[in-house]
Order: sequence, then structure tokens, then C-alpha cells
Amino acid sequence: MMDVIYGKNSLLEALRNAKDNSYFDSIYLLKSDDEVFKLSKEKKIKVEIISKDRFNKILDDNSIKQANHQGYLGIVKEYKYYDLKDIISNKNDSLIVALDGLEDPHNLGAIVRTCEIAGVDGVILPKNRSVRVTPTVAKVSTGATEYVKIAQVTNLVNTIKELKKAGYWIVGAEASEKSTNFWSVDYNMKVCLVVGSEGKGVSRLVKDNCDFLVEIPMWGEVNSLNASVSCGILIYEIRRQQRSK
Amino acid sequence: MMDVIYGKNSLLEALRNAKDNSYFDSIYLLKSDDEVFKLSKEKKIKVEIISKDRFNKILDDNSIKQANHQGYLGIVKEYKYYDLKDIISNKNDSLIVALDGLEDPHNLGAIVRTCEIAGVDGVILPKNRSVRVTPTVAKVSTGATEYVKIAQVTNLVNTIKELKKAGYWIVGAEASEKSTNFWSVDYNMKVCLVVGSEGKGVSRLVKDNCDFLVEIPMWGEVNSLNASVSCGILIYEIRRQQRSK
Repeated sequence: MMDVIYGKNSLLEALRNAKDNSYFDSIYLLKSDDEVFKLSKEKKIKVEIISKDRFNKILDDNSIKQANHQGYLGIVKEYKYYDLKDIISNKNDSLIVALDGLEDPHNLGAIVRTCEIAGVDGVILPKNRSVRVTPTVAKVSTGATEYVKIAQVTNLVNTIKELKKAGYWIVGAEASEKSTNFWSVDYNMKVCLVVGSEGKGVSRLVKDNCDFLVEIPMWGEVNSLNASVSCGILIYEIRRQQRSK
Repeated sequence: MMDVIYGKNSLLEALRNAKDNSYFDSIYLLKSDDEVFKLSKEKKIKVEIISKDRFNKILDDNSIKQANHQGYLGIVKEYKYYDLKDIISNKNDSLIVALDGLEDPHNLGAIVRTCEIAGVDGVILPKNRSVRVTPTVAKVSTGATEYVKIAQVTNLVNTIKELKKAGYWIVGAEASEKSTNFWSVDYNMKVCLVVGSEGKGVSRLVKDNCDFLVEIPMWGEVNSLNASVSCGILIYEIRRQQRSK
């Protein structure tokens, strides 16, 4: 099953955000649309006007039950994940963000958007028990998935060990008895920030392999920040120390 | 028209988050539900099992077209906004967040959640061209709307002038030629942080009345952070300076 984007507005928005033809495989329309043609031509993406029968077959093949496609359908290339070696960097202020079991595509999209803007060298996702890069993630990231290197790894603990060998310090974002206030850690080093899942936080084995555990101080009644907000706060504190001098 | 919450899961979640009976006016069920009864009793909220006719009439009166109410309906009291004087504080590290024209209830909910956790003294919303506190906002805030004082004001510029008289410095979050890197401002004072709308930023008149304009440095291709993420980053930098010593 391929990933698809359907509906006039959704398709146009994705087309506008597309850097080139690396995101869309092809676009199918039931009738001509000047803006879709113009944008597709600019970005060298294949567009075809097809029959209702063929259109419906593509919908069926992709189990799209919604009737609100409005005759606009884009087939999205599967996201090509990077290897760990592609994101490991020699820069002294390298920052990598590893997401341990994140489940919500909106959170992943928002985090990738922040990572892109903060110049993060790469995002790491475990292959199992984790959201993957879907069109929803790409959309929420406002196109950032096309710029940030995202790697999928089979075993996050092994990945952390490799990152340590490459000179990274592993900072786990997790409130626990052993945690330090995140403002009191010195981040002037190569950092891999590990953020846990929405409900369960960082898993035990991963936690055991962190060099530091940090927590964001809280003064309220509600007991947790949104995952993408806390990730933004942590990333920008690391960048403040690494880059504000 | 009253605000309502419908569907078993949504209603139960809101009931669990409710601090007391200040959020729900009443709850209507088509048949008995032990958990709803238990939670409502704890929080002293009125529950009634009613006929299908009466249930449908409430749905009609509130223009609820969805069929997925599952026989669970909660009528929500209208949010009681605070006055500006209720949120003005004498504390040296007082922080107020004013939202200039925010439109997305999800962003407002996420921002209120962050404000509650960061111990913000109050949130200010303009009456016009702004999202108001709806059940969606309350839900996304994970209950924080019940703890944070939210004021609705008719004229944000006048409000800013009153805040200045009360000793607040007005910090506008806005990228412009006049803006300073947000890390380089000294926030050891009473601060009102002004955050603009998702698309248009802080409006001109409001901007003209700010003491500082600050911007978050960005190193990527995507040109803006999510409103709730940037708000979280700014709030926690202000708190770091005010409270990390």
C-alpha cells in the first residue's frame, strides 16, 4: 500500500511545499487544474488526467474510503530513511534527536519542523513501536521532512552505543529521581537528545544507557508538557549553550 | 448555543480531568454507565438518564449533526473569563502571556497547557479575531484551562498600556529588522510576552507598543516554528532567567 494525499487543498498545499520531485511519485486528476499543472511542471512531477474507473481503482487499491477526494490524488514516494552514518557529524555542536517510541504523527511532524529550523543533524526513529514518516507527518512538518535527515534503526540501545563511540553524549529527557534540572547541564559537546513516548517516557534500557537524565521544571497542576513543546524547549536550550556565544 | 462534549471516550476523559463541578453543567446518558456515575458523584456533577427524544432535542438545539455521540453527552458551562486586574501580580517574576489574534484552538490549548505548567500568572485573549476557550481548547490543554486565569479584553493596545502602568515590560515575539535575539534580552522583571497569530504575527499597533521585539534564531529552510512550540521556548527562556538562580 502506497501513501496518498487526496483533496484539492491538501494536494495543492503539499505541492507548494514540495522541494522538487523527490516527494511525489505522481498526481492523478479527474479533470484539468491550472494550478496543479503549473506547480507540477515547476517541480517536474508527473500529472495525469485519468478516467473515473482508473481513479476509483487507485482509491480501492489504497483502501481510501473517503468520498472527499474531489478528483485530486497524489501518490507519495515512500520516505527514504537515512543510515545512522549519514547523520553522525564531526561538528563540535552536532545535535541529534532520538525519539523513543513516539506514537502521534502530529507530534513527530511538529518535532521534525523544530529540528529542521534548529539545524539538527538528524532524527532517529526506532523501527518498532514508533510512528513512521507518513504524509500526515510530512504535512504537519510543513515540508521539513524533505530537509531533515531521518534514520530508522532496529535497536535504539545499540544505536546509542554507536553514537557514544562517535563522541556523542546521550541526554535523556525524563523526570525521575536521578534527573537534573535541564538548565544546569553543560551542553557544549556533541549531543544526542533522547525524548520518550507521549505516555510512557523513555524506556528503561535506553534510560540506563544515557549519560545524563534531564527534566524541565514544572510549577503547575498539569503533570506533563506536550511532547513537541518539551522537545522544542530542550533543543533550544542546547542550542543556546552551543551557539549563543 | 451551549458547548457540548459527546462520545464515550471524550466525555470520560473530560470527566477525569475535571477538577470539580465548575466545568460541566450537566451530563446526559441514554443508558447507565458505572464509570460516568462514579466520576460525576466524586465531582458533584449532575447526571441524568434521558429518553431518546429528549437526547435528540438537545443534539438538535446544539446543531450536533454527528451520529457518533454513543449516547453520551456533556453540557459544558461557558468559560468564565477573568478580569485583567485578577491576573496582574505584584511578584517580581510575574509572567503574563498575551495572544494577539491566535486562531487555532489546538494551539491555544497547547499554549495554555504550557502556561499552567510554567506557573504563568495569566493568559490574555482579545475578544475579536481570536479563538475563545471552547471544549476543544480545554481538552487539548489537558485540563489546564481550569487552573490558568484567562482574561478576555476588548482592546489589546489599551491592555498593554495598563500592564505597563502596573510595572510590566512588554516583550513581543516577532521576527523583524528591529528584533533582538531572544537569548540576549534580560527578563529579570515583570514580563508580558505577546505572541502573534499563526500566519500574520503580532499586529502593527501592538508591535509599536512593545518595549522589546525578540526573535528565535533559525538555521533551517522552513520559515516558522509552530506557535505553541515557539511560545514554549520563549516562556522557558524567561523562566530560566527569572527562576534558575
